[in-house]
Amino acid sequence: MTQRSDADQRRHEALDYHANPQPGKIATAITKPTETARDLALAYSPGVAEPVRAIAADPDAAWQYTARGNLVAVISDGSAILGLGDLGPLASKPVMEGKGVLFKRFADIDVVDLEVEAENPQAFIDTVRRLEPSFGGINLEDICAPRCFEIEAALTEAMDIPVFHDDQHGTAIIIAAGLTNALRLQGKRLEEARLVLVGAGAAGTATLNLLLDMGLKRENLLVVDRVGVLHEGLDDLPKHHRRFAAKTEARTLADALVGADAFVGLSAPNLLSEEMLASMAEKPVVFALANPDPEILPEVAHQVRDDLIMATGRSDYPNQVNNVLAFPFIFRGALDCRARRITPNMKIACVEALAALAREAVLESVLKAYDLDAMGFGPDYILPKPFDPRLIERLPAAVARAAEADGVARTAYRPHPMPGVG
Amino acid sequence: MTQRSDADQRRHEALDYHANPQPGKIATAITKPTETARDLALAYSPGVAEPVRAIAADPDAAWQYTARGNLVAVISDGSAILGLGDLGPLASKPVMEGKGVLFKRFADIDVVDLEVEAENPQAFIDTVRRLEPSFGGINLEDICAPRCFEIEAALTEAMDIPVFHDDQHGTAIIIAAGLTNALRLQGKRLEEARLVLVGAGAAGTATLNLLLDMGLKRENLLVVDRVGVLHEGLDDLPKHHRRFAAKTEARTLADALVGADAFVGLSAPNLLSEEMLASMAEKPVVFALANPDPEILPEVAHQVRDDLIMATGRSDYPNQVNNVLAFPFIFRGALDCRARRITPNMKIACVEALAALAREAVLESVLKAYDLDAMGFGPDYILPKPFDPRLIERLPAAVARAAEADGVARTAYRPHPMPGVG
Repeated sequence: MTQRSDADQRRHEALDYHANPQPGKIATAITKPTETARDLALAYSPGVAEPVRAIAADPDAAWQYTARGNLVAVISDGSAILGLGDLGPLASKPVMEGKGVLFKRFADIDVVDLEVEAENPQAFIDTVRRLEPSFGGINLEDICAPRCFEIEAALTEAMDIPVFHDDQHGTAIIIAAGLTNALRLQGKRLEEARLVLVGAGAAGTATLNLLLDMGLKRENLLVVDRVGVLHEGLDDLPKHHRRFAAKTEARTLADALVGADAFVGLSAPNLLSEEMLASMAEKPVVFALANPDPEILPEVAHQVRDDLIMATGRSDYPNQVNNVLAFPFIFRGALDCRARRITPNMKIACVEALAALAREAVLESVLKAYDLDAMGFGPDYILPKPFDPRLIERLPAAVARAAEADGVARTAYRPHPMPGVG
Repeated sequence: MTQRSDADQRRHEALDYHANPQPGKIATAITKPTETARDLALAYSPGVAEPVRAIAADPDAAWQYTARGNLVAVISDGSAILGLGDLGPLASKPVMEGKGVLFKRFADIDVVDLEVEAENPQAFIDTVRRLEPSFGGINLEDICAPRCFEIEAALTEAMDIPVFHDDQHGTAIIIAAGLTNALRLQGKRLEEARLVLVGAGAAGTATLNLLLDMGLKRENLLVVDRVGVLHEGLDDLPKHHRRFAAKTEARTLADALVGADAFVGLSAPNLLSEEMLASMAEKPVVFALANPDPEILPEVAHQVRDDLIMATGRSDYPNQVNNVLAFPFIFRGALDCRARRITPNMKIACVEALAALAREAVLESVLKAYDLDAMGFGPDYILPKPFDPRLIERLPAAVARAAEADGVARTAYRPHPMPGVG
């Protein structure tokens, strides 16, 4: 008998999970009675004519009589699936369904996953904007840079519902929350920190924009991409990189890191050498987020320095930067005040609520869910855990308050009644 | 105290059904475990990479690992909502969700409702075709004629999954099944019957095409539209009417009906006068399907002639022509053999299975569901009832066999395991 390798076993389990007992992970549920002919006469003809007339008279009635107000479309062209690259829209479907599972599981948001076969970015934009009446929000997913910027900007402009590219802003929010807490633990402040970010793609660009909005000084920032350090001497930078070109003599990652307080890597395995890490300032923060193999392994990094706080994208190390900590809750907040868009202040409110939650005592139920003995705010716990029930209590409210303050809320915030919550 | 009128009461009930306890009629259900971090690692990252890779290697794997194979999109532009007209896509949402409820309730088909704000028919076509990777089938709904013909033809040509405009073909199938049985009870055959159809819009045109495919002779057919009888002397007929122009001296509905065996009305209230009905052949069949007020009321028609068999679109008279008798089952059959399209033979197979079922003994459970004492094949029972559990047993199988025979099935028919059915 041959023994199955661990990798084979994991592969088998993942395929089995998706295939059995029936294909896929999501289905349709009917939420109203349909037992009798009378029920059906209300659900469909002739009863359905009444909400139709009501919505024709007042479009806002759609929030009252249809599922629109709790419905988010998860939309991809499959051009940047996980770390796997451009495999096309059909192959992205398991990821989009999975995203839908997380929306439903963590925030009771209903979802439609749409995989779009578009000839070009404009065709994608036209397709999505024409579907506006169907949904309460749009979550863009796994779309490659730079087209993701063009697509999100055009849809945000064209549509009167929130449009959010999670690979950009969801990631940015978690990084910003974790970084805020890590710097705090190190006795530093974002406003004074020297930061080096490697990999200015979708997530990197959004992270930089958010951190600058939150107080990071441009003169304290160096961005490294394939061409090396982005600096003013480079005259053919793509549009989304120009904002980050620095007045600097640094040309390589090694140059950039000397004396830096924080490293954010969204790049490639083992890019951060032991020497580079050693050259950073005292009490540094290292977010090595390349997945599944980080820019430097935590066990290696901690051998080089014992004054380090570190995060990765992996669940098997402390401080996982995991998007599920934000996207269900930012959409929950946006839907619950019928927001027209997601503003920078709504993202910052989410960052602050998330960071604040990690600084509170950890719930017993959370310790149990993760099979941990004890845990508290500190170098190995700078972000809450996904199963923390306080996320749904705190984050949507914070996001909705920011929406109200920014004037993009159609209604006052009314918390969604979560199933199973009194 | 004022007393609420019946109409007010019904209006209130319909709005209440749609609004409470939460807006709308459908939601998302998660079909796989999501209790633990390990579950989520299978549903999303990193486990989801395995089905992604499998589908990238073989697109057919999408049927195995995603919900695509059981998923139908119900899509409208809101240009012909029920009998209410062009109220736009948003106002059509309650109808599309209601259609989804029926798909799920009767055939366990998962649904996505999409309301499309399209500048023109080509924009609608482009939008829908780009979404092909998302779905196993497309049900078009409430799109006005003649644009519905252009849209359906273009999508059927462009897409490799079934595209079905239910207002056309669903209606046509029920009419054809009922008409087959009514003529049979009257001792007549479709191949010899003289038929007059009034209202050659979406449903009327599809009904005519299906009846011609099933053996109706063109020389026995007269079609009446706004211009009167469609005849060869008219030289500016729209494209979808040309096929039905007859060599005839008849110019009015009254002319056309003299000696006719069957009347099919998809037109306007009270269009069929007592005199016209009296002029029809012996043992006539009258399908007065204008809704809610038929071309002639059954109580009036039966006073004029006692040799009549009649159907309407209403549930409060015998013989309701109700689309729910076909669309859930034709899609169930198409999905269960992964059909690439819906062929004429698949529609005819559905007609024949539906008509045959009405000729069988009525189940006790059906009598009970409709609170009827007894019922059997005859003038007041020419079509099965929607809650007949044999519909899901018979119709999909018949449709799938026709798909296999026509070479449009990707796989052999494998009946979907219905929930609650051993």
